[in-house]
Amino acid sequence: MSKEITARSEDYSQWYNDLVLKGGLADYSAVKGCMVIKPYGFGLWEGMRDVLDKMFKDTGHQNAYFPLFIPKSFLSKEADHVEGFAKECAVVTHYRLKVDEQNGGVVVDPEAKLEEELIVRPTSETIIWNTYKNWIQSHRDLPLLINQWANVVRWEMRTRLFLRTAEFLWQEGHTAHATADEAIAETRQMLDVYADFAENWMALPVVKGVKSANERFAGAVDTYCIEALMQDGKALQAGTSHFLGQNFAKAFDVQFTNKENKLEYVWATSWGVSTRLIGALVMAHSDDDGLVLPPRIAPLQVVIVPIYKGDDQKARIDEKVHAIMADLKKAGIRVKYDDSDNARPGWKFAEYELKGVPVRIALGARDLENNVAEVARRDNKTKESLSLDNLAGTVQNLLDEIQQNIYNKAKAYRDGHITQVDTWDEFIATLDGKAGFVSAHWDGTSETEEAIKEKTKATIRCIPLNNPQEEGKCILTGKPSKERVLFARAY
Amino acid sequence: MSKEITARSEDYSQWYNDLVLKGGLADYSAVKGCMVIKPYGFGLWEGMRDVLDKMFKDTGHQNAYFPLFIPKSFLSKEADHVEGFAKECAVVTHYRLKVDEQNGGVVVDPEAKLEEELIVRPTSETIIWNTYKNWIQSHRDLPLLINQWANVVRWEMRTRLFLRTAEFLWQEGHTAHATADEAIAETRQMLDVYADFAENWMALPVVKGVKSANERFAGAVDTYCIEALMQDGKALQAGTSHFLGQNFAKAFDVQFTNKENKLEYVWATSWGVSTRLIGALVMAHSDDDGLVLPPRIAPLQVVIVPIYKGDDQKARIDEKVHAIMADLKKAGIRVKYDDSDNARPGWKFAEYELKGVPVRIALGARDLENNVAEVARRDNKTKESLSLDNLAGTVQNLLDEIQQNIYNKAKAYRDGHITQVDTWDEFIATLDGKAGFVSAHWDGTSETEEAIKEKTKATIRCIPLNNPQEEGKCILTGKPSKERVLFARAY
Repeated sequence: MSKEITARSEDYSQWYNDLVLKGGLADYSAVKGCMVIKPYGFGLWEGMRDVLDKMFKDTGHQNAYFPLFIPKSFLSKEADHVEGFAKECAVVTHYRLKVDEQNGGVVVDPEAKLEEELIVRPTSETIIWNTYKNWIQSHRDLPLLINQWANVVRWEMRTRLFLRTAEFLWQEGHTAHATADEAIAETRQMLDVYADFAENWMALPVVKGVKSANERFAGAVDTYCIEALMQDGKALQAGTSHFLGQNFAKAFDVQFTNKENKLEYVWATSWGVSTRLIGALVMAHSDDDGLVLPPRIAPLQVVIVPIYKGDDQKARIDEKVHAIMADLKKAGIRVKYDDSDNARPGWKFAEYELKGVPVRIALGARDLENNVAEVARRDNKTKESLSLDNLAGTVQNLLDEIQQNIYNKAKAYRDGHITQVDTWDEFIATLDGKAGFVSAHWDGTSETEEAIKEKTKATIRCIPLNNPQEEGKCILTGKPSKERVLFARAY
Repeated sequence: MSKEITARSEDYSQWYNDLVLKGGLADYSAVKGCMVIKPYGFGLWEGMRDVLDKMFKDTGHQNAYFPLFIPKSFLSKEADHVEGFAKECAVVTHYRLKVDEQNGGVVVDPEAKLEEELIVRPTSETIIWNTYKNWIQSHRDLPLLINQWANVVRWEMRTRLFLRTAEFLWQEGHTAHATADEAIAETRQMLDVYADFAENWMALPVVKGVKSANERFAGAVDTYCIEALMQDGKALQAGTSHFLGQNFAKAFDVQFTNKENKLEYVWATSWGVSTRLIGALVMAHSDDDGLVLPPRIAPLQVVIVPIYKGDDQKARIDEKVHAIMADLKKAGIRVKYDDSDNARPGWKFAEYELKGVPVRIALGARDLENNVAEVARRDNKTKESLSLDNLAGTVQNLLDEIQQNIYNKAKAYRDGHITQVDTWDEFIATLDGKAGFVSAHWDGTSETEEAIKEKTKATIRCIPLNNPQEEGKCILTGKPSKERVLFARAY
């Protein structure tokens, strides 16, 4: 199996597609730009979703569900918002088909035209704030802390599995607050939740920062983000948390009576991560033999493969494995025994390597006699013979070690790929060298950022939080600057 | 609060709407026919979803995710399917809006017209079987056991919150098998899973049966269903499981090589339940004071309300309640302490009654001295003073008793509302008396069923499984019949 994966050095993009398709994460569909998430990929998403969902609930949020459709007119109520989303909307114009008497098949029924077209939600601020208008009257109704798990659609011309698809799955938090300070605190709290999840579950080191005006969410006052680095030196925005000010409250006229009994507009946040995170996971850790999944979110953490000749050996191995399985499951470990007889052990090894299962245990008749098993790590490809006594404890420790090792490796790579440059030539050379984040001075204007993007395809990924202040000159214009920002080419 | 609920006897339909809206389950939205599921209602759905999801996984199914959109032409590949769904489709025709220079706002960009229109999935057989074509080659790829949790859209003209909405949430299982027998066994297994869930979790007694041809899913060979009875004597289809034969395999050319190395078409099933179940739950158990939720799926099982004067009493009660809460949570009970000081105990009592919380515990200073608490049941409105010693154990038993009592009550009602009739006059009188299911002979033809529906609005809800065979005459035509079927007016 592993031979079918294109090497990163040969064609990074094809390597990624191979992993996603052959690793069983996703498939193309008959609808341009829409993917099918296959069971293994969806299992990964379910695990990520459950962890995030608990984090949201632990910070006081509740889930709800808002309509898939948004009346077209809602989109234009917030001036920046419409600019950001109108160009990539799926538009529902009719509500009925009819059989085509002449040619067979079905055609749109021209008599079933909607009075007002509906947009398939690209994000739900507008429909949600239109609803919040009815839910918020007094300061006692605040804060309102709601999250939604949903599918959204943004019509993209160039799509990539997980990274950029017309439809994707995500969660979107939408909160309402009595003061700007509270809303900003919420925005930053959720950024911390995302960073915690990325680092401690996905083993993905991230830079926390704020977006420049050009990269800000359409309708936000400030967009906070976490930015990760992929193995080809490109950055990937892994999550965003927006302070929306009173923009949507004003657009939808959502006011509350404060404690002084005066009417005020409500303060808002929104924040989201999506199935794009799966793309980030794949590209951050995997190698030329397949996926490398961090144990804490791997759908399957351990696979056990028997090595035997004849039914008698098989029966003895089975008996032992069932005891081992029981111990592992008791320890909360996700384990599978693959004793299917339609593939050889070597084929199975390659298959689970491709699928990124963190630990593989092979057990043969000889091992059984010696009370050991061959335990192989996916992350660094080492193998050792380990005692069957307290194997669950050993494996638990090993999973923790693997989790840490995957994170350390990604962090060492990321830390080694932040380069400070002070001249335009260095800037270009560093970008072209696929060196990751480039830390450079910028004059703070949208025009300069746009010019840099046009010349190099690099964008400002973020202005890191707690950024050191330092006098310098913009790499493009030479104008004065007070701090460095992180540039990169990005997914 | 309770006064705001319309009595069932006064206006059953308004009573239902009051419960859904004032109980905090759902709200209307700005999009005609689409609802907002509020946090309390969504919590209920999450609990139901988690239980069902585990049942699906325990029977070998995996989750996946397929596109929201279906190419228009797919719908007409299965002849019956298109008849069933074309008339209620949301149709996407364009993929971009543009700013209207003359009038402001946004308009559909006429240049962004799709080559082929896309349908928002009303159900996913077509897009899924088009995908399965690539996944199934050999008998080794079978069975394929996949489920999807998703939103679907069927454009309904007359909508009711939860019961009939343009968009709703559901799960749809889609399985592929090597033989008809296996597929039929799967269809019936999932019907049993649904019946188990309805009866043992929702406390909702159901009749398992098969649909007549008129009521069959568009594209199915056989549709199995569970039918429940509401308090107004109307039936509600609570879940369906379809044996699809080879209809979709033929429509999408999905063949496999069997063990004899011959090509065969694959056998299919699909099965689903939706947020409509929440409507069933509300209507089956609730009363004129509000919702009555079975403890096993109630988002909140116990609420504790302190009764106190002054901070000193409050502090002593708080201390005890925290110990009680810890015990209850340890026992796996979902409990909330409502010590908010912006409402009186009486208001809180009414509020939690309206929300259907199964057990309410009130604790005052006097109670504390006597080592007791006042424990009130939502289902039968009884209260008693119970010892604080081992309160968690007492409450756990009480929750079990309430679950059983709600089920028994619903079952007694249902069993008392199945009436055998042998003449047309009796049939009409029974229906008009809101007597629930009417068990009657029918000549087995679609024409007769249609005529009965037109005259009475009653449909055949199902032919019960293991139905006794009995000679009789059709209530409408007098033609011979071999068995009784269950008629009812239905949601």
